[in-house]
Amino acid sequence: MSKALVFQTDFGLVDGAVCAMYGVANTVDPTLKIFDLTHDIPQYNVWEASYRLRQAVDYWPGGTVFVSVVDPGVGSTRRSVIARTRRGQYIITPDNGTLTHIKKMDGIESARVFDEKANKLPNTGESYTFFGRDIYAYTGARLASGLIDFDHFGKRVPADSVVELPIVPPFKKENRVAGMIDVLDVRFGNLWTNIGHGLFHQLNVRQGERLEVSIRNDTRNIYENTMAFARSFAAVAIGEPLIYVNSLQNMGIAINQGSFAKAYSIGTGSNWHISFRKIQGQF
Amino acid sequence: MSKALVFQTDFGLVDGAVCAMYGVANTVDPTLKIFDLTHDIPQYNVWEASYRLRQAVDYWPGGTVFVSVVDPGVGSTRRSVIARTRRGQYIITPDNGTLTHIKKMDGIESARVFDEKANKLPNTGESYTFFGRDIYAYTGARLASGLIDFDHFGKRVPADSVVELPIVPPFKKENRVAGMIDVLDVRFGNLWTNIGHGLFHQLNVRQGERLEVSIRNDTRNIYENTMAFARSFAAVAIGEPLIYVNSLQNMGIAINQGSFAKAYSIGTGSNWHISFRKIQGQF
Amino acid sequence: MSKALVFQTDFGLVDGAVCAMYGVANTVDPTLKIFDLTHDIPQYNVWEASYRLRQAVDYWPGGTVFVSVVDPGVGSTRRSVIARTRRGQYIITPDNGTLTHIKKMDGIESARVFDEKANKLPNTGESYTFFGRDIYAYTGARLASGLIDFDHFGKRVPADSVVELPIVPPFKKENRVAGMIDVLDVRFGNLWTNIGHGLFHQLNVRQGERLEVSIRNDTRNIYENTMAFARSFAAVAIGEPLIYVNSLQNMGIAINQGSFAKAYSIGTGSNWHISFRKIQGQF
Repeated sequence: MSKALVFQTDFGLVDGAVCAMYGVANTVDPTLKIFDLTHDIPQYNVWEASYRLRQAVDYWPGGTVFVSVVDPGVGSTRRSVIARTRRGQYIITPDNGTLTHIKKMDGIESARVFDEKANKLPNTGESYTFFGRDIYAYTGARLASGLIDFDHFGKRVPADSVVELPIVPPFKKENRVAGMIDVLDVRFGNLWTNIGHGLFHQLNVRQGERLEVSIRNDTRNIYENTMAFARSFAAVAIGEPLIYVNSLQNMGIAINQGSFAKAYSIGTGSNWHISFRKIQGQF
Repeated sequence: MSKALVFQTDFGLVDGAVCAMYGVANTVDPTLKIFDLTHDIPQYNVWEASYRLRQAVDYWPGGTVFVSVVDPGVGSTRRSVIARTRRGQYIITPDNGTLTHIKKMDGIESARVFDEKANKLPNTGESYTFFGRDIYAYTGARLASGLIDFDHFGKRVPADSVVELPIVPPFKKENRVAGMIDVLDVRFGNLWTNIGHGLFHQLNVRQGERLEVSIRNDTRNIYENTMAFARSFAAVAIGEPLIYVNSLQNMGIAINQGSFAKAYSIGTGSNWHISFRKIQGQF
Repeated sequence: MSKALVFQTDFGLVDGAVCAMYGVANTVDPTLKIFDLTHDIPQYNVWEASYRLRQAVDYWPGGTVFVSVVDPGVGSTRRSVIARTRRGQYIITPDNGTLTHIKKMDGIESARVFDEKANKLPNTGESYTFFGRDIYAYTGARLASGLIDFDHFGKRVPADSVVELPIVPPFKKENRVAGMIDVLDVRFGNLWTNIGHGLFHQLNVRQGERLEVSIRNDTRNIYENTMAFARSFAAVAIGEPLIYVNSLQNMGIAINQGSFAKAYSIGTGSNWHISFRKIQGQF
């Protein structure tokens, strides 16, 4: 049986671009099962593309083929790669940082670089702007349907050579853990940090305990206050802030049924720092 | 053959949350056919989740499994239920009012409550915030694929015990029918009332006949004017208002190729009242 | 095996309308594979519906059934048609101009008109406003599943009788090619013209060569400047404008990683004129 094929782009769904990618995949193999991660990655935002892969890839069976096309450098010399994760999923993408989180956290087992000209959909002529359709969807469909075989496709390269964006690693120092704000849970306005629940628990925090939370970006302090660590949103009042373990088992900050990000105009990325400090003598 | 699985949430499609739900379902059974109702329910709006189910469920074959996750009380003590409709579709949801319209209008044939802990996706650890992925998608996929059997899953509860939100029932009084504005046909700005075409026709209205329409909310009169009852939009001029039978066979109000809701700032819910009054001696 | 079924509408995905169409199709044949072109066609914008079909149809296998419902005249006397393209795809739509681009550029091989009453989903009663669900999705599903046969369905009509919207044909005059702005690549703000790369190359333009670009609408000049013809976005600096061959092999205008359409408030349609003039003696 063919494997699932999952598309992610920054193309949106307003025009026919994603549908043309689906058509190419259906032409390769009409029995393919095709799905979407999201097509609403902010344009050219490779960081967010990387994070959304981390959020989803792990929940799919081994063999699933992801095609991610956020490609500000389309037509330049950046490489086209296929990575195989340690759990056996495949990700086809321009090698521009899209694999940052998967590489850092889940591990890329091996990677191959392939030639764009040799793997271009026939009859696309002079157009060199829609690699999502002509190269990535086409190659993804052939891999998912078994027409090409990862181990004999393109050229093997060291997994280590896959491009990574800079990340501020989380750390613990005395009674404090700190890290960066990775991404927003956009629709609900929650902050997702890169501080894992394991590191956090080295502070020996109990449910209901209040911690000091401080958020700053490179130029100023944005937020400094205390809030409770809660098992779930329902444990605090509506409108109250909380610290919680998010669905990727990292630490998050939210306002129950409100938007923390809007309330304090919070952004994301490696210049947005957050720390949790244990208040001594609380219990 | 496995049954169709249909997801509805208030998560949006901007991040990887819905894709993770799809991944969980594909891991349970890679042959499942998965579809979306909508993921754009306004956050925490259980009323609208309930209405959208009513708009779609009936058109799907018996056996179809719907998973609806609009869950402001995630992590609290509200129950998790599976309802079987009289036509044999299943709906899995937090029992928070999401089943209001299905229960009132189409009928729930039976309902079962299930334990969240016993039905949580393995290896999701300390996270208790993403029941859509860890519990509802997981349980829905197992039901759609036949791995669990409704009649032996969880604990049977009276259909009557399923939570309902308040509804103002429509009524007829003399030459007038009245009810509430249930929902908007958002994109087109049409109002959908809870007045069925059967009740409306007790006024003996002919096509083309004009009626007095009045709309008020709890504090003031919003609209009072006459308009024609028309078979379809094309029966009136562009820009003209009309009364029509909507696609759920309830009475609607629209402006042909305009937005009635925007024109008069109309809202929805049990404090938005509407009535149609027959004008005597018109024919 | 049944054929792929692809839906396009102006309904949006916020409510349950498209899901009801999916349900109808699944009820006709639960093995159908159903996909979306887009549901974000601006309301009633038949021109854009026509263009989006052109952007996608060609990439799908022969036999694929497209259902396009942008139908400002629902309930009026406009015909319902099925067109078969020269490559064997089918398009079911109200005959209101939705087939303009397919007809002009790719060719309709034959067309049939069908009766709406005789092909209405059973049990939809008095509602005459949701033909997308009751007639078009229902008919599309029956065609895709093989329950009806194009050659014996409805009544054959001349392909020539299919309704077309007006188009300004592109032309070459001396050292200049001119045409109209067909559509925007919305998300990226690029302009797509109806000037094919073949006509453009009659100017003997080399990569890197600068041309004079002028854009005007019916009342005034909007833009007059020179820019380079480039093979891809990466060939120019970030923020620089370029002329390129778009993914449909027509000429496009863009700002690399910016929005040309926003920068100069560009619109689309037959009153938006664009021309490229070769600058003599450049090489």
